[in-house]
Amino acid sequence: MMTAYELILKKRNGGELSKEEIESFVSKVVSGGIDDAQTAAFLMAVYFRGMTDRETAYLTDAMTRSGDTVDLSAFGSLSADKHSTGGVGDKTSLIVAPVAACLGLKIAKMSGRGLGHTGGTVDKLESIPGFRTSLSPEEFISQTEKTGIALIGATGNLAPADKKLYALRDVIAAVDSIPLIVSSIMSKKLAAGAKNIVLDVKTGSGAFMKTAEDACLLAEKMVSIGKACGRNIAAVITDMNKPLGHNVGNALEVVEAVNVLRGEKTGDLREVCLALASNMVALAKNMPISEAEKLCAEALDSGKAFIKMKEWIGAQGGDVRYLDNVSLFPETSIKYEVLSPRSGYISGMDAEKIGLVSVLLGAGREKKDDVIDPAAGLVLCKKTGEYVERGEALCTLYTNKTGIVRQAEKEYLDSLVFSDLRPEEIPLIIKTVV
Amino acid sequence: MMTAYELILKKRNGGELSKEEIESFVSKVVSGGIDDAQTAAFLMAVYFRGMTDRETAYLTDAMTRSGDTVDLSAFGSLSADKHSTGGVGDKTSLIVAPVAACLGLKIAKMSGRGLGHTGGTVDKLESIPGFRTSLSPEEFISQTEKTGIALIGATGNLAPADKKLYALRDVIAAVDSIPLIVSSIMSKKLAAGAKNIVLDVKTGSGAFMKTAEDACLLAEKMVSIGKACGRNIAAVITDMNKPLGHNVGNALEVVEAVNVLRGEKTGDLREVCLALASNMVALAKNMPISEAEKLCAEALDSGKAFIKMKEWIGAQGGDVRYLDNVSLFPETSIKYEVLSPRSGYISGMDAEKIGLVSVLLGAGREKKDDVIDPAAGLVLCKKTGEYVERGEALCTLYTNKTGIVRQAEKEYLDSLVFSDLRPEEIPLIIKTVV
Repeated sequence: MMTAYELILKKRNGGELSKEEIESFVSKVVSGGIDDAQTAAFLMAVYFRGMTDRETAYLTDAMTRSGDTVDLSAFGSLSADKHSTGGVGDKTSLIVAPVAACLGLKIAKMSGRGLGHTGGTVDKLESIPGFRTSLSPEEFISQTEKTGIALIGATGNLAPADKKLYALRDVIAAVDSIPLIVSSIMSKKLAAGAKNIVLDVKTGSGAFMKTAEDACLLAEKMVSIGKACGRNIAAVITDMNKPLGHNVGNALEVVEAVNVLRGEKTGDLREVCLALASNMVALAKNMPISEAEKLCAEALDSGKAFIKMKEWIGAQGGDVRYLDNVSLFPETSIKYEVLSPRSGYISGMDAEKIGLVSVLLGAGREKKDDVIDPAAGLVLCKKTGEYVERGEALCTLYTNKTGIVRQAEKEYLDSLVFSDLRPEEIPLIIKTVV
Repeated sequence: MMTAYELILKKRNGGELSKEEIESFVSKVVSGGIDDAQTAAFLMAVYFRGMTDRETAYLTDAMTRSGDTVDLSAFGSLSADKHSTGGVGDKTSLIVAPVAACLGLKIAKMSGRGLGHTGGTVDKLESIPGFRTSLSPEEFISQTEKTGIALIGATGNLAPADKKLYALRDVIAAVDSIPLIVSSIMSKKLAAGAKNIVLDVKTGSGAFMKTAEDACLLAEKMVSIGKACGRNIAAVITDMNKPLGHNVGNALEVVEAVNVLRGEKTGDLREVCLALASNMVALAKNMPISEAEKLCAEALDSGKAFIKMKEWIGAQGGDVRYLDNVSLFPETSIKYEVLSPRSGYISGMDAEKIGLVSVLLGAGREKKDDVIDPAAGLVLCKKTGEYVERGEALCTLYTNKTGIVRQAEKEYLDSLVFSDLRPEEIPLIIKTVV
């Protein structure tokens, strides 16, 4: 068996690692048989040398099998999962899950918390009083069986190799490597057990993948690995040059999701959710995408998806009165309108910066242990492509933190680009990879 | 001040680090303000991205100043030091120091122990009964003053940044990076304080630099940094495609050095030693190299250098009777002649493999804490370019370890290439960089 040193050397020199070599690396990572310095050096060598598709597949497989895996075989071909590579204002899981469950799919899903400029589904759901994100394995399965949806925080010993590798990548500037991203995302998704997987690969200023080319490459690699592991899988590449929808912040995003689920709100958020849900339904039911789209739109417009959401939230202890009457959500002590310093078109938004404004307002975390304020966030009035008059409201800031609103305003304004000309439109859904 | 993460990211992305950034990195390394995983990632990023000459100079300077520095100003312009990048059978320090000291130079030198396929001067000297390699700072200076030479093991807090960085590079496969080698070697040499420095940069199968191009590049970078720091410096690039001289192993190498010092032995070893010593003398006395060569050759031929060696060894407690009568050195219990399996020319030797045979025989260390056998080693009878008859002796193996001689023989034979044609000769001294 190769030593850790030899593994690093081989990768550093551009060699292709064998299945056995990659398995030995992953097992050393989990057992502690390789020290952090060697693991870090290996990851940095992968950053520079890349990995072949074969190596990436071996790595993903070894990471998937590095801990527990969830058995969703009870749901046959109907188990489904989605994953987003992370964006700002991305509340799609709150909408996609009920829509897909309306059509008979079984969404037994694990989600994460927010960190940095991106939010997390678990945080958003916890803004609903009473909502519990920890269920026993038995509750998790039986609730999925009964209501079609169960959503819990990432739990237990799922892909522990990824936990260790990600924690290191995060401090050594080795996050943005395609094979490392692919293996990290896919090992968790594969271990989570769903037969059908839809990936929302974000691209643009608020996404990890800044260019559409990188996002497409990442999507193709993930789809190909999912297929090789016997899953039905599709990736939708969506724009993240501006936040998705208008609300950024935990309770604020729940409210916006409710508006879409009630069929009251159209626009980019609904469009992305329909694309994700219909791809999921098309995969699980093996039906044409156009037919799936019709069924999903009907689930929203008929109010069925909203009923399903309440059924799900209620099953996990959430107080559904908040969904029927969103004015029950507590308001922040400070509400502040950011006014436009000039007239003109908004020609660009730095979505990552806007995500960081929401963190400043209290809606997100700089560090893992930070406490978030469920009521904080911002509501955009004008997005890229829209015209604004001088003095008109650009957005409203919501916070309970005193003394930060001026800074938040300044940073929000810094995130915008104005122009006298209407900017070219960037398509919302760039590509679907199946 | 940049965080460790930002330093890694900047280097990873190919940026040029400023003096302040590099100083902050080195100070974090020494203080423990950066963890090993981040340091390892940084080193691997340097491996891939390289460093500009400016960055290498800043790094070397910061590492030099990371701990104590030796003050040799008492010796004015006469203090001199040499460094070898490491080879097999390299006992040049044992010869160069006495020759240079005969001509008035002051050699206050720190040397290392052997590891892997290369030996260390300290180990070689310790094969002389009584020889002490730890002297107090006062003894170190006063002995240099009196005899012209003092040699001790690398000691105290000299370039502690290098100690930490090298220990990491060693386990993460980031040793062979030009800027990292340059800063490692030069920070130690600069901290060791000599005004005149001669570098023996080995190239070939037994050297870290496998190609003459790499060796020349390394030599030029080191010479340029030495000059920038106000030292007189020269680098001699010498061949290490075969061991230097005929003896490999600690006491065996002392014996061979004595033979050269007595003027009894000519050939490659004497030639390299004269090149190194005469460059050192030329630098320190600011004289033409041809004149320095004549003086150095005379120091050997007259026996003066041998007398100087005994003076030096005696001053450090070594039993000089062993030098006058080398048959006093203990013999190994096993002596084994490796015979040639065929007739023909030796057209190639893998010097690194031969170094590893000497480790197997007991003369070197696989790991830092291994105990070495001063009597073990091998004596070559035939080297590259020589003709050998089938059944003629190729070398003699010396060991006290039972049950390994067959393996050592096999590995020795594996290190040789035979040919019916006389191989082209590789020059011994490839270039001098001043």
